Amino acid sequence: MSDSLSALANQRTQIQEKYNNFKKMGLNLDITRGKPSPLQLDLANNLLTRPVESYLVGNVDTRNYGGLDGLPEMKKLFAEMLELDADNVIVGGNSSLTMMYDSLARACQFGVPGGNGPWNQVESRKFICPTPGYDRHFLITEHLGFELIPVDIDENGPNMDQVETLVAADDTIKGMWCVPKYSNPTGSSCSEDTIKRLANMKAAADFRIMWDNAYAEHHLDDSPPLLANIMEHCIAAGNAERVLEFASTSKISHPGSGVAALAASPANVADAKSHLAVQTIGPDKENQLRHLNLFGDLNGLRSHMKKHAELIKPKFDLVDEILNRELGSLQIASWTKPKGGYFISLDIPDGTAKRVVDLADEAGVKLTNAGAPFPYGKDPRDRNIRIAPTFPALEDVAQATEVLAVCVQLAAAESVQN
Amino acid sequence: MSDSLSALANQRTQIQEKYNNFKKMGLNLDITRGKPSPLQLDLANNLLTRPVESYLVGNVDTRNYGGLDGLPEMKKLFAEMLELDADNVIVGGNSSLTMMYDSLARACQFGVPGGNGPWNQVESRKFICPTPGYDRHFLITEHLGFELIPVDIDENGPNMDQVETLVAADDTIKGMWCVPKYSNPTGSSCSEDTIKRLANMKAAADFRIMWDNAYAEHHLDDSPPLLANIMEHCIAAGNAERVLEFASTSKISHPGSGVAALAASPANVADAKSHLAVQTIGPDKENQLRHLNLFGDLNGLRSHMKKHAELIKPKFDLVDEILNRELGSLQIASWTKPKGGYFISLDIPDGTAKRVVDLADEAGVKLTNAGAPFPYGKDPRDRNIRIAPTFPALEDVAQATEVLAVCVQLAAAESVQN
Repeated sequence: MSDSLSALANQRTQIQEKYNNFKKMGLNLDITRGKPSPLQLDLANNLLTRPVESYLVGNVDTRNYGGLDGLPEMKKLFAEMLELDADNVIVGGNSSLTMMYDSLARACQFGVPGGNGPWNQVESRKFICPTPGYDRHFLITEHLGFELIPVDIDENGPNMDQVETLVAADDTIKGMWCVPKYSNPTGSSCSEDTIKRLANMKAAADFRIMWDNAYAEHHLDDSPPLLANIMEHCIAAGNAERVLEFASTSKISHPGSGVAALAASPANVADAKSHLAVQTIGPDKENQLRHLNLFGDLNGLRSHMKKHAELIKPKFDLVDEILNRELGSLQIASWTKPKGGYFISLDIPDGTAKRVVDLADEAGVKLTNAGAPFPYGKDPRDRNIRIAPTFPALEDVAQATEVLAVCVQLAAAESVQN
Repeated sequence: MSDSLSALANQRTQIQEKYNNFKKMGLNLDITRGKPSPLQLDLANNLLTRPVESYLVGNVDTRNYGGLDGLPEMKKLFAEMLELDADNVIVGGNSSLTMMYDSLARACQFGVPGGNGPWNQVESRKFICPTPGYDRHFLITEHLGFELIPVDIDENGPNMDQVETLVAADDTIKGMWCVPKYSNPTGSSCSEDTIKRLANMKAAADFRIMWDNAYAEHHLDDSPPLLANIMEHCIAAGNAERVLEFASTSKISHPGSGVAALAASPANVADAKSHLAVQTIGPDKENQLRHLNLFGDLNGLRSHMKKHAELIKPKFDLVDEILNRELGSLQIASWTKPKGGYFISLDIPDGTAKRVVDLADEAGVKLTNAGAPFPYGKDPRDRNIRIAPTFPALEDVAQATEVLAVCVQLAAAESVQN
């Protein structure tokens, strides 16, 4: 690696010139957030334009109050997606993130089934954060007063040696985050071995895995990895209460107006409902009807997702192609080639990620803040860059990636000479 | 009163016969909950059937993520309804009750501006409940660990002598509930004097009035009472942080799919947003668009509410007429004649309310549980019956009220002879 770094350093003048040329172009590009593009949103415009002909579902008037856990057909759709029974599912509002926050806020205020009272009573409560991971997850647990404990993540999911050791030794660790499929940002999915170990490991009775299956149906190619059923493994291990699963249509229909769900064991579902009966008048059933009319069933939803893949796969391919061309031979960077999800995770030389984000910003390309995918926003090696290629148009993704690659080269060259 | 009671007792046989005749009819009627009728919901069916032509508001794509506090036009609509600035408003999801729960849950977990830390730290925390009042309000504070302190309510709102005395003496009283207009179930509205006293009374810095203006626009006749602006009075008194106002379109458009709002001082709004930025991805903006398309502006919403009044006023009138005919001369009952809202509150002889609810149930008429409008579901005098006439058809309202009146007579007659 240092050979290639010194080679780069020798070319610093040319790299600087390339960078300066980009700077002169007055670009204004943004590859920061995992948002669907307008063309992707167009796929679900029937939510806005197709009349809902019947507001009755059986004898339920979907317009009125009532129905704490969602319409039966909507529960069924999420149950099939998560390979669970409809009884395991509570349909919520427009955001699975809110259901995650509320689940943890309830655990802090009231405790959970099998626990010893409110988590608020555990002053030094902690939560495990596989990193790099999703900043909004980490922020929820930070906000609710948990100390964030990082563990590594690789192509099989969270590093289970680290997780098992931590959890067995400390029952003030109340849970962990996990995006089991096409993890944000690494794109990795949990192997069956990882899932078995999560289900079977020794942990406190009130330990909870926040299983955010945000990308359950978000494949980029035709051979998606199979995800083992964590609930089945938890039940088999006598730990049925350990996992809280979440899913939503946010990146399937419309992010601001999707439908979210929580799925869990009967005891966890009953516990959540006992609080929801106080907190809510029930979720928006008309929006559930609109979604059922849009998808029909899980097969319809899967056909819909193929259209998303057609729109975004070229963007992922292009980023990979440009990074290969510009960085491939230099041996200073590695990046993921995800089979689904919304992100590419790029690792560059230690200590240069912040510099790259600043350089790109000066050249008119907004990148996710360096460190964002780490607890407290701090990447200990300052080397990870998250690329979110879905939102911009294809030509903008290309342009932004070209700029990013030159910034990586320049920051690497600078790091040798500094 | 005892004269009329003994007269009733002498007619017990005839009353019993009337009751038995009703019983034989095999009725199945329900006047328990304050729900709009299907005909009222039909008024807003455009939410389901009218296509939303443009999803852009300025350069905001309402389909995507973002927009923590709602669309500017929706904030404006609620601001005008509450006579506040749009900056005071946070638009939420489909339920103002959820916004109330969340506001109090946040206060318990984190505290409020001007307070001394999380309310959870105050073990003997208390909340004032004007009674009879709304059971779902009382349930929220009971669930969050508050002791419920009842105060009386009359035609001018909560009994301010009681409120002032309680609040001045005890800073573990963290707040109070108040439905300022057409209160559930008494139908009373706060007078300007009540509102001034609420704004000016001596209370802890973190005392909060939960001002649930659920029936702000729900008039039954053309001369609605004017509600003084509590926020202005609070600001004038140097207590801007004291009031959290809530409103929604639940009983204006569709209860399950309405739009809710919280309005408060800049400090309270900033505080709420700092937590919502962690808890949510923003409210459903498409549903806000649908509502803006349905109403246009506050004048449009007010025209819409006149159509509601046309549908439900005959039901309120009919209940009053039947109660007058059947109970008016007996001097054993008094009831409210609200100028708006959803309820009639009926007071009958002490110790007979539960018996009336049971008798009506046996005759096929479901009434709200006796005691429901009181803290812990216990009416200390067992004398209050809440009548919710909006949902059933007019002929069912009539039939149910006839049965109710006979049950009141019978329970009163029984109470003399027991």
